[in-house]
Amino acid sequence: MEMNSIFEKFGIVTDLAVEAHSLVRGDAQTEIPGVIESKEKFDIAEVTTIIIENPAAGSLMGKAPGTYITIDTPGLRENDPPLHDKISEILASKIETLLKNLNIADDAEILLVGLGNWSATPDALGPRVISHVMVTRHLHKYLPQSLGPGFRPVSALSPGVMGITGIETAEIIRGTVEKVKPSCVIAIDALAATNVDRICSTIQIADTGINPGSGVGNQRMGIDINTLGIPVIAIGIPTVVNAAIIIFEAFNALKKEIPGFARQIQEPTLNQIADKLLAPFGGDLSVTPKEIDTLIDNAALCIATALNQSLHKAVGKENAHLFLQ
Amino acid sequence: MEMNSIFEKFGIVTDLAVEAHSLVRGDAQTEIPGVIESKEKFDIAEVTTIIIENPAAGSLMGKAPGTYITIDTPGLRENDPPLHDKISEILASKIETLLKNLNIADDAEILLVGLGNWSATPDALGPRVISHVMVTRHLHKYLPQSLGPGFRPVSALSPGVMGITGIETAEIIRGTVEKVKPSCVIAIDALAATNVDRICSTIQIADTGINPGSGVGNQRMGIDINTLGIPVIAIGIPTVVNAAIIIFEAFNALKKEIPGFARQIQEPTLNQIADKLLAPFGGDLSVTPKEIDTLIDNAALCIATALNQSLHKAVGKENAHLFLQ
Amino acid sequence: MEMNSIFEKFGIVTDLAVEAHSLVRGDAQTEIPGVIESKEKFDIAEVTTIIIENPAAGSLMGKAPGTYITIDTPGLRENDPPLHDKISEILASKIETLLKNLNIADDAEILLVGLGNWSATPDALGPRVISHVMVTRHLHKYLPQSLGPGFRPVSALSPGVMGITGIETAEIIRGTVEKVKPSCVIAIDALAATNVDRICSTIQIADTGINPGSGVGNQRMGIDINTLGIPVIAIGIPTVVNAAIIIFEAFNALKKEIPGFARQIQEPTLNQIADKLLAPFGGDLSVTPKEIDTLIDNAALCIATALNQSLHKAVGKENAHLFLQ
Amino acid sequence: MEMNSIFEKFGIVTDLAVEAHSLVRGDAQTEIPGVIESKEKFDIAEVTTIIIENPAAGSLMGKAPGTYITIDTPGLRENDPPLHDKISEILASKIETLLKNLNIADDAEILLVGLGNWSATPDALGPRVISHVMVTRHLHKYLPQSLGPGFRPVSALSPGVMGITGIETAEIIRGTVEKVKPSCVIAIDALAATNVDRICSTIQIADTGINPGSGVGNQRMGIDINTLGIPVIAIGIPTVVNAAIIIFEAFNALKKEIPGFARQIQEPTLNQIADKLLAPFGGDLSVTPKEIDTLIDNAALCIATALNQSLHKAVGKENAHLFLQ
Repeated sequence: MEMNSIFEKFGIVTDLAVEAHSLVRGDAQTEIPGVIESKEKFDIAEVTTIIIENPAAGSLMGKAPGTYITIDTPGLRENDPPLHDKISEILASKIETLLKNLNIADDAEILLVGLGNWSATPDALGPRVISHVMVTRHLHKYLPQSLGPGFRPVSALSPGVMGITGIETAEIIRGTVEKVKPSCVIAIDALAATNVDRICSTIQIADTGINPGSGVGNQRMGIDINTLGIPVIAIGIPTVVNAAIIIFEAFNALKKEIPGFARQIQEPTLNQIADKLLAPFGGDLSVTPKEIDTLIDNAALCIATALNQSLHKAVGKENAHLFLQ
Repeated sequence: MEMNSIFEKFGIVTDLAVEAHSLVRGDAQTEIPGVIESKEKFDIAEVTTIIIENPAAGSLMGKAPGTYITIDTPGLRENDPPLHDKISEILASKIETLLKNLNIADDAEILLVGLGNWSATPDALGPRVISHVMVTRHLHKYLPQSLGPGFRPVSALSPGVMGITGIETAEIIRGTVEKVKPSCVIAIDALAATNVDRICSTIQIADTGINPGSGVGNQRMGIDINTLGIPVIAIGIPTVVNAAIIIFEAFNALKKEIPGFARQIQEPTLNQIADKLLAPFGGDLSVTPKEIDTLIDNAALCIATALNQSLHKAVGKENAHLFLQ
Repeated sequence: MEMNSIFEKFGIVTDLAVEAHSLVRGDAQTEIPGVIESKEKFDIAEVTTIIIENPAAGSLMGKAPGTYITIDTPGLRENDPPLHDKISEILASKIETLLKNLNIADDAEILLVGLGNWSATPDALGPRVISHVMVTRHLHKYLPQSLGPGFRPVSALSPGVMGITGIETAEIIRGTVEKVKPSCVIAIDALAATNVDRICSTIQIADTGINPGSGVGNQRMGIDINTLGIPVIAIGIPTVVNAAIIIFEAFNALKKEIPGFARQIQEPTLNQIADKLLAPFGGDLSVTPKEIDTLIDNAALCIATALNQSLHKAVGKENAHLFLQ
Repeated sequence: MEMNSIFEKFGIVTDLAVEAHSLVRGDAQTEIPGVIESKEKFDIAEVTTIIIENPAAGSLMGKAPGTYITIDTPGLRENDPPLHDKISEILASKIETLLKNLNIADDAEILLVGLGNWSATPDALGPRVISHVMVTRHLHKYLPQSLGPGFRPVSALSPGVMGITGIETAEIIRGTVEKVKPSCVIAIDALAATNVDRICSTIQIADTGINPGSGVGNQRMGIDINTLGIPVIAIGIPTVVNAAIIIFEAFNALKKEIPGFARQIQEPTLNQIADKLLAPFGGDLSVTPKEIDTLIDNAALCIATALNQSLHKAVGKENAHLFLQ
């Protein structure tokens, strides 16, 4: 499990439970006790559900216990709105599944939170989703006659990142939760993957909230039931791979090619090489595709459509477009 | 006082105390009891201080009792950074004056709040100031050794507008204030004026916070000591004039030109004309200069520079640039 | 025809042939010789075709002789993509009509030109259309095997405005036309209307190109067959009304209300009043709705969809989305 | 010279003459005939001038013959405007040197060209410089009395990238040059480096124009005296490193660490590893620091300031700010 030392050294975690699971299972793909993985096939997507049953399994996986659903769907990268509508439908049904698991009623109030930095493209997924999603809480409160049946109260917040606010994001959300008193928070965040293949082609939904250290912007405090007092569903899409990961993936591939390589060259030497190559920005370098601006715009619309559909009975797959902002 | 009926009808208020004062004093410019106005001249600006001494005077003025400082400085519109630095200096000294009046200590924590909508240009002043200002609260907390002496803890928030969040802005701020526990809030907002001459040429600073109904985005709840429990300094710059105001200003000018005009034509007729012309967008039409994008960028930098200077002893007029984000 | 003196004084023209026609016909709506107007009704739109038959009629109308098609469709303002798709279909069929009138073959090369200023929202319609439209010229040239049948060569340019380039826009386009050698230019521009009701609810298509002085950014030279040597189709949507127009519309409405008003007060006095109210920005003040950012985004997508559909046989109304960039 | 095969394979070139020179000289740093390198030291920068004297030397270097000036100045990455002003001064003096070498007169007309894609952050350097730079050509032509002495005619163009226009950028520029008839073009472009240390800390100015294949956006045709018929000065700043380069740099570092590594493992194997890791986006993955948005904004202002200063005698280092747009 050499990757772990790398993760520790560079403060990198994979935000994806499927990647963590595969990593922990290792080349032999041994079963991990307390972790259940199952798969569903759709014509446009493969959905993997990983349930981490207990803290012991969570500790092995470096993830909180709970349910992690991963939708793998390379079509999300294509510029094909009708295909994105189909992805939104799958995502919407999975959000509904998690809300049901958490016993959130159909009319219970939800607070959406867009994590990340509006003005740093690869970290802007959350705020962009917020700018597209329908909010109804103020209408319920001030103009109830303007809403037909089938719309629950939904509010939304883009709190910003600590470098711009000076405040832990979790604190701003907690303060708002205490005023708004929703039944559940759904937090959207840009994730870091360990494989470029996952950039803007994977969507992860989890009922465990956001762990400290996760996301492109690296949350300091968790955003979960422990910090907020209410359940938190997290929706994330990988938008970057840390540049250090790319180097170590290359070294790992080499190890498999050259017998004895692992003995010949020590971990510390590899660390030194990566350190030196990436030093100028404190290792804080990301790998992104050139078309990242477009990819993130499309992904944000796809998530916003799914949220509108899953949160309001009155919004179906045929009319979901009508409620995008 | 025909303007009042107009204001009521269209839900328009002037956000500027100097305009309200002039309007209430009328053509005869009679003194208003409980309102004190004084002026200072600078080579690049004229500064007017209006003190509303009691609720009775406040009610006449349509403004909360307190101190309103207006800096009139047409140079803010020019593309002249060294001139803007001089404006920042004047603004910084006036912010310091109000902080002193409110007995806020030099090292007391401040929360900056950028009101308005990031993605609607004329309403984006507040969020753009927040994106440029230096925040230090997280450094005080996690990296105190990274700060020399002379920096107080400052945090910053752009809560968004109710149309996007579904939450009254004051509620988000109140929730954050309860977590961050600053001594004072400084709120920055784009204002509506009644005169195009004031667009991006006037800065108003007041120790009364933000009144309900004010700002381009029209706050519903006040953001002041009553709602937040701590003093609120408001900094605003007019960026629009409501289109209805332009029409009524034209009618008012006509009344002065034509003797008997006021008798000949009734207020309801004028209201009908304006209503009909502006109907399509519910009267929600703004007059702005074409170069509003640039004007607001410059104004935001000017306010951010003044905030850095007035809040931190270690930041002087020579090095203020260094601390812009 | 008092409006004319206003237009001259403030350098304002209406960019819309339907508005000019109505204005020239006056209250009595007399027929103008050489101008033919006809109407078509759709459930979501009313389409007016005005043909200016000869230079004499053009001179009366202040417009070049040719065909002007206006689509009035308030639904363009609503946030309703399926409705916008229907508007795109109507627009596409009208673009096809004009291309046929001009004898442009189905496989003839087209250059799209997005006029206006990318970073001034109400003037950004043209550049935003260009950012969404499909271009194929480089594929025809370098990767012909990547294109199926039914795609003609299309290129696209956003030349910028003279305040930013220092060059007449027509010159940049002419230079590019000489290199690219298309059969026809289609130019997209944000227009100025005289009525707020038309903002983002009217689309005008004309086979006459762009006249000097037209558009939000005020072209200095025409962009038409005379300057470019090839036919130019112009597509425009009003995004602003000049603030001076609003004032004069209010005065005109007053004239109808008060008998004798026109005698009582002279045109020069009205001009002086408007001048004084709008002086600070040299009269260069626009009236726009607050949600202009969103309106323009939607309108740009609608035009881009129509262009993709009308220019390529392989793009139909069902798959038009697939080709948006 | 193993790097060459890599460059060929991935279509990557280093856009920097200093990197190419170091690479070609190899570990032994042997002299290359026909290449002269000299250095100047400033307190905030080191300036390296490389003269490629003839086509033979150019062929070895993979660069056109001419003068390449590199300013290495890590301060460009810091948020320190007064320091950026000093960098602008050095850059301005070097632009003047190249203009003098090319015999461009003080009042000769210049066309500035911002290469790259406005809406893809790491490729937006050129268009952002254009948005800040002062243009005077239209004033010379239409309002000569508005300009004092010491301003030459300057125009500016952001032609866009071929993926958006369908037209080779060089063709649009050539068309414009034929209309505007400047004496010289200065083209600004975001560059690709082979070392992350150079991202936003190096400025290269060359009198050779832009070579095919260079820049983040990969020009297809050269933009130089051969294609335009007039001299072209190129100003570039590296904003990305191709992800493939990072991997190969890591392998190169390993080779130095492990004796015999180069023999043990073949080049094709390394290529396969890199290919596989970077496959999903066709190898088109960039490494950028997280703060790239801010870095590029600052770099664009720095270049625009230097251009204003070097092109107009009336603009000095004290008043350069006044002329930024």
